[in-house]
Amino acid sequence: MRRKTVTSTENNVTQDEGLVEPAIADQPITDEEIFMAHAGGKLSVELRSPIETQRDLSIAYTPGVAQVSRAIHGESALVDKYTWTDRLVAVVSDGSAVLGLGDIGPRASLPVMEGKSALFRTFAGLNSIPIVLDTKDPDEIVETLIRLRPSFGAVNLEDISAPRCFEIERRVIEALDCPVMHDDQHGTAIVVLAALKGAVRLLERNLASLRVVISGAGAAGVACANILLAAGVSDVVVLDSKGIVSTGREGLNEFKDDLAARTNPRGLVGGAAEALAGADVFIGVSAGQIDEAFIASMNDDAIVFALSNPDPEIHPDVAAKHAAVVATGRSDFPNQINNVLAFPGVFKGALDAGARRITESMKIAAAEAILSVVADDLAVDKIVPSPLDHRVAPAVSAAVAAAAHAEGIC
Amino acid sequence: MRRKTVTSTENNVTQDEGLVEPAIADQPITDEEIFMAHAGGKLSVELRSPIETQRDLSIAYTPGVAQVSRAIHGESALVDKYTWTDRLVAVVSDGSAVLGLGDIGPRASLPVMEGKSALFRTFAGLNSIPIVLDTKDPDEIVETLIRLRPSFGAVNLEDISAPRCFEIERRVIEALDCPVMHDDQHGTAIVVLAALKGAVRLLERNLASLRVVISGAGAAGVACANILLAAGVSDVVVLDSKGIVSTGREGLNEFKDDLAARTNPRGLVGGAAEALAGADVFIGVSAGQIDEAFIASMNDDAIVFALSNPDPEIHPDVAAKHAAVVATGRSDFPNQINNVLAFPGVFKGALDAGARRITESMKIAAAEAILSVVADDLAVDKIVPSPLDHRVAPAVSAAVAAAAHAEGIC
Repeated sequence: MRRKTVTSTENNVTQDEGLVEPAIADQPITDEEIFMAHAGGKLSVELRSPIETQRDLSIAYTPGVAQVSRAIHGESALVDKYTWTDRLVAVVSDGSAVLGLGDIGPRASLPVMEGKSALFRTFAGLNSIPIVLDTKDPDEIVETLIRLRPSFGAVNLEDISAPRCFEIERRVIEALDCPVMHDDQHGTAIVVLAALKGAVRLLERNLASLRVVISGAGAAGVACANILLAAGVSDVVVLDSKGIVSTGREGLNEFKDDLAARTNPRGLVGGAAEALAGADVFIGVSAGQIDEAFIASMNDDAIVFALSNPDPEIHPDVAAKHAAVVATGRSDFPNQINNVLAFPGVFKGALDAGARRITESMKIAAAEAILSVVADDLAVDKIVPSPLDHRVAPAVSAAVAAAAHAEGIC
Repeated sequence: MRRKTVTSTENNVTQDEGLVEPAIADQPITDEEIFMAHAGGKLSVELRSPIETQRDLSIAYTPGVAQVSRAIHGESALVDKYTWTDRLVAVVSDGSAVLGLGDIGPRASLPVMEGKSALFRTFAGLNSIPIVLDTKDPDEIVETLIRLRPSFGAVNLEDISAPRCFEIERRVIEALDCPVMHDDQHGTAIVVLAALKGAVRLLERNLASLRVVISGAGAAGVACANILLAAGVSDVVVLDSKGIVSTGREGLNEFKDDLAARTNPRGLVGGAAEALAGADVFIGVSAGQIDEAFIASMNDDAIVFALSNPDPEIHPDVAAKHAAVVATGRSDFPNQINNVLAFPGVFKGALDAGARRITESMKIAAAEAILSVVADDLAVDKIVPSPLDHRVAPAVSAAVAAAAHAEGIC
């Protein structure tokens, strides 16, 4: 369908054909290169000040350290000032839903968690350690984190399968007096909202009046639906592998039942064909594929976010034939919807503010802050900043901290 | 009693009076200096290679990291090669017996655990993270470490009160297929054995024939008794707050009952007076005080290790009036018996060897390696190396790894 003419910021984008060249013309990354970069792991624990002299040793360890322990014993809040925990995010996983690989277990999930910890350091200057658990039982995961609570300042839940992730996150938030976020849900949702707001502004459309279809009712799909509803979108339709999630559909679990009650206001039934006809926005977080015909059936100036990795629900070049704005989860196409735009700044802002939890308003503030970084030079291939844009995390953390203070949860 | 004349390595030791000047004439360490050094904690998590480009990001995180996760999922042993866990020691405490401060809880124990992690990095080049637990229940501690097992490569149990520490260590060792050591027990015992061997060699005495009195039947006392028995000392007498631990004494717990069965071969009853009359070695790990008269009643060429911190069981200057060799736990006197001589090298050696546990022979090898560093220049004020001697950890780790291979537990 019709596409609005919007100028590109990149010379290598060929508007005529609607095809977008890969943004990166580097040599392909080889397996050898990947494995070499992982040898021995990606993280190290270092000293902030070296221990070189007897005096250093007497200060950092016995007998000097006893003064600090005694002070914290007397006033427990001092633990935030004199230990690393106040700036430490535990990246916690059971390895049950790792990338596109599924339930590969805690050990195999570790490289991903180390990567996440590395990104916390790189973009937010936070300490972070991977904690992978040899249990998938929600009771045991929650209980373990309660016992570990004095060891860290925040919890980034990661790669935990749906629907367990919903219950686990809810219970961990209830149990711990610190920022907790399941990034697969909310990190994705925040960046999707930022990108959607960018596309809407670029296309001069109105967020609230959009018809949005989300393909995927897992962690990311549910969180995207929630944040869009919270941000004022009223017409959200969610698809799972059996079609439109709707009230009255048989066999919905409690989470989908709840989702059905809050979405699909026009009471659609059926599948992708029924959902996408005339829709304004497609958000794919499903690991499935979507027919080009369904995308072609969308409204004018359609927005397509095909976020499955490594294989988008529809190839961005194909989607671009029918949509005004296309985004993926991949680094080799423009508009990469990457959680790294959100989680470092969200946790930094929450920790900076001393927030006891991460609220919907903090997430929406994060999305607006991501958008703010590119607001002045929005383009069809730049609705979100680059994942490497070091302006993003400071903007997000400031906005999240301000939102936390405004809500009075510090 | 008589003291053998042994030359000192330090000019500030005044042999005539048997008094030893503090080895360190620095300005006193102020509280302000200590707290400043602890502001924000002592550790940081850093990247081994920076993430600066899109290529770096694609290698360290998605999509590249999926290759590594897939490989580990296929062959779990690869986790040792491609993550940090193989070189990561968790320093685990419940904060129940911290330094001389007692049960101050997990948060107040954190500065000590951070210090310990800092020493693992400084002396053994190992990664280490503090894990402090908000439970003192042995079942829960063991269960938690079982669940956390994929997150690390070894466990240094720390500052857990006796007698719980014995059960907890035994059960954690049984449950986990990795090196586990309660440092308050075995780190102390290893360095005590090293120091005692040094003193014995210096004084040209015979380890096996010594009468040894250990004051304190807690974590360190029991471990010292065990390692000395394993090293060939036959006459060990242990004192607790009620006197000599002996078979037939009423009200002994199971651990002391076991200790009584393996020590006190002459069947002594009574207290410090009875134990120390004619004894060759006093090892104080009690946090109590010992009368000068009891030390004076020891045999010629007595060896006194007054290890309580910050207040030794007897001031080393006073002990030196009656003993040929005196050691303390303090950095401001010669012969500091400091666990840091042992634990970095012990864990490094165990991890280097891929050992599944830490055995008595590995501990004895560690003690001999510590001694080996000073064997050629033993002196009355140099029976152990300085805690800052960077030759120690490599020597210890090599010896421990060799012992592990010899035992075939790799």
